[in-house]
Amino acid sequence: MTGTFIAGDWGTTRLRLALCRNGEVIARSEGPGVAQTSDPASAFATAIAEWTHHRTTPAVLCGMVGSTLGWVETPYLDCPVDVDRLAAGLVRFDHDGRSVAIAPGLACENMLGAPDVMRGEETQILGAVALSRDRDVGRHLFCLPGTHNKWALVEDGRVVRFHTTVTGELFATLRDHSVLGRDTAGLTPAVDDAFALGVDRAFDPRRPALGHLLFEARSRRLRERMTAGDALSFLSGVTIGADVAGMLDLLPAPGPVIVVGAPALGKGYAAALAHAGVDAVSVDGDAAALAGLGALVAAAGLLGE
Amino acid sequence: MTGTFIAGDWGTTRLRLALCRNGEVIARSEGPGVAQTSDPASAFATAIAEWTHHRTTPAVLCGMVGSTLGWVETPYLDCPVDVDRLAAGLVRFDHDGRSVAIAPGLACENMLGAPDVMRGEETQILGAVALSRDRDVGRHLFCLPGTHNKWALVEDGRVVRFHTTVTGELFATLRDHSVLGRDTAGLTPAVDDAFALGVDRAFDPRRPALGHLLFEARSRRLRERMTAGDALSFLSGVTIGADVAGMLDLLPAPGPVIVVGAPALGKGYAAALAHAGVDAVSVDGDAAALAGLGALVAAAGLLGE
Repeated sequence: MTGTFIAGDWGTTRLRLALCRNGEVIARSEGPGVAQTSDPASAFATAIAEWTHHRTTPAVLCGMVGSTLGWVETPYLDCPVDVDRLAAGLVRFDHDGRSVAIAPGLACENMLGAPDVMRGEETQILGAVALSRDRDVGRHLFCLPGTHNKWALVEDGRVVRFHTTVTGELFATLRDHSVLGRDTAGLTPAVDDAFALGVDRAFDPRRPALGHLLFEARSRRLRERMTAGDALSFLSGVTIGADVAGMLDLLPAPGPVIVVGAPALGKGYAAALAHAGVDAVSVDGDAAALAGLGALVAAAGLLGE
Repeated sequence: MTGTFIAGDWGTTRLRLALCRNGEVIARSEGPGVAQTSDPASAFATAIAEWTHHRTTPAVLCGMVGSTLGWVETPYLDCPVDVDRLAAGLVRFDHDGRSVAIAPGLACENMLGAPDVMRGEETQILGAVALSRDRDVGRHLFCLPGTHNKWALVEDGRVVRFHTTVTGELFATLRDHSVLGRDTAGLTPAVDDAFALGVDRAFDPRRPALGHLLFEARSRRLRERMTAGDALSFLSGVTIGADVAGMLDLLPAPGPVIVVGAPALGKGYAAALAHAGVDAVSVDGDAAALAGLGALVAAAGLLGE
């Protein structure tokens, strides 16, 4: 793609910006998440203050920046949505002589028939589709681990349905605020034998309720001398394992699952998928967001012809 | 029962004491939980300071007071355990001229084959058995809602197996520390239509993973204008519903479930059990603890013949 634009992935906890020229990133910058600033316009200006030669370079943003907590609220588009529909839904406005476009979020009835929403992940998913020729045809299951994990079914380049699972937040709140995380401050869960035991427990064919397994992170310490570090990895394995087992029960994977996100998080999901005999393909989350924002710029013709 | 003794239910967050004479409570007192004091002997002395005529009256205690965090550590007895075995396992010592006995906890392989433990609930369960002639024969399923809910199978007056589910703590940590509890400070969950919807979601015949349902407490607010109060009740319904559905999948109730605890907590469990067509019988938790401690005093002959 010829031309220059600013691409921004602006979530709850951080803003990541890239200055892109002719398809390459020539500079990067960061800023606060939308939950950490009450003045997004100023936060944006501060984050790009160094880019003095780009006072009118257009910007395209995705994520919680389009929520009620963000800069300008954008609508939710009902699935199915492909990159052209997402581009047509961009909310565009002028800010200080610059054209800014913010991506809408997506809404659907999820895999259990309940209302569901996402903001930001749609751009990562469509970016991951754009990064590989194989992914814009056929049926693919995507997994985007995070505070709120998103599972998405993509058919012929369209997000047709998705499902949010509260896995990262569940793990973090139990680790930080329950007896299950006692003595684990400063420790990091590993994808190791204790993690594998947790995954194995979650894949029990009786499909135990999560709350029926969690206490093992405590009782195994009291009765089997499991260490605090192993208990933390076990807790991670149980929560990720229950997420993966639950999703594969609802929707058998149509092929390798495309795991989009930070490699450390993706590793646990890949291990749990492997436990079920399902392959995982890993895609870096930042690269996917950037590719998605670039695809939106192209589809919307933001740089002109 | 003739004679006088001090009965104490001493858990993590509170100490509840009763002065019992000839089978009646003649005075009550309270004190800090074992997690709130580093000197249990002094805390006990302070809590009974008014009972000046009872400097040598024997005391019997149950709960976390027998843990490593407590006053004197007591062992875990492996199930099955009836009141006579529990009484034989009392750890007795003299304190300041008074005979003190602390009940042991119980251990077992739970209903999913994992190690499990309890401290305090065994005394409540055996007390609830003692409170009714019907309960010391046959097979009964007990439910003791709390931070860590305990399900226990009792056969002919013996606790044969039990299972801890992290339901109360899961609900509280999500309410207080996750986005699911946003704007709910000061609100109390009700057993109402929103609660019933949560229970119904958890009883979905596909038995969705808990993490696959929790986000509805957020998405229904964004998409269906569910109020914060209803979202909190929904969250309570989903967590209790998943607990009850999971247990009934593992172990069909052999009859009415005996729910032992505070009435407010028991109400939600009774509603979720009713959803599955299972009756609940409610027993007050403090009365059950007192009855259990009395049964231990009698079985151990602590008051002499």
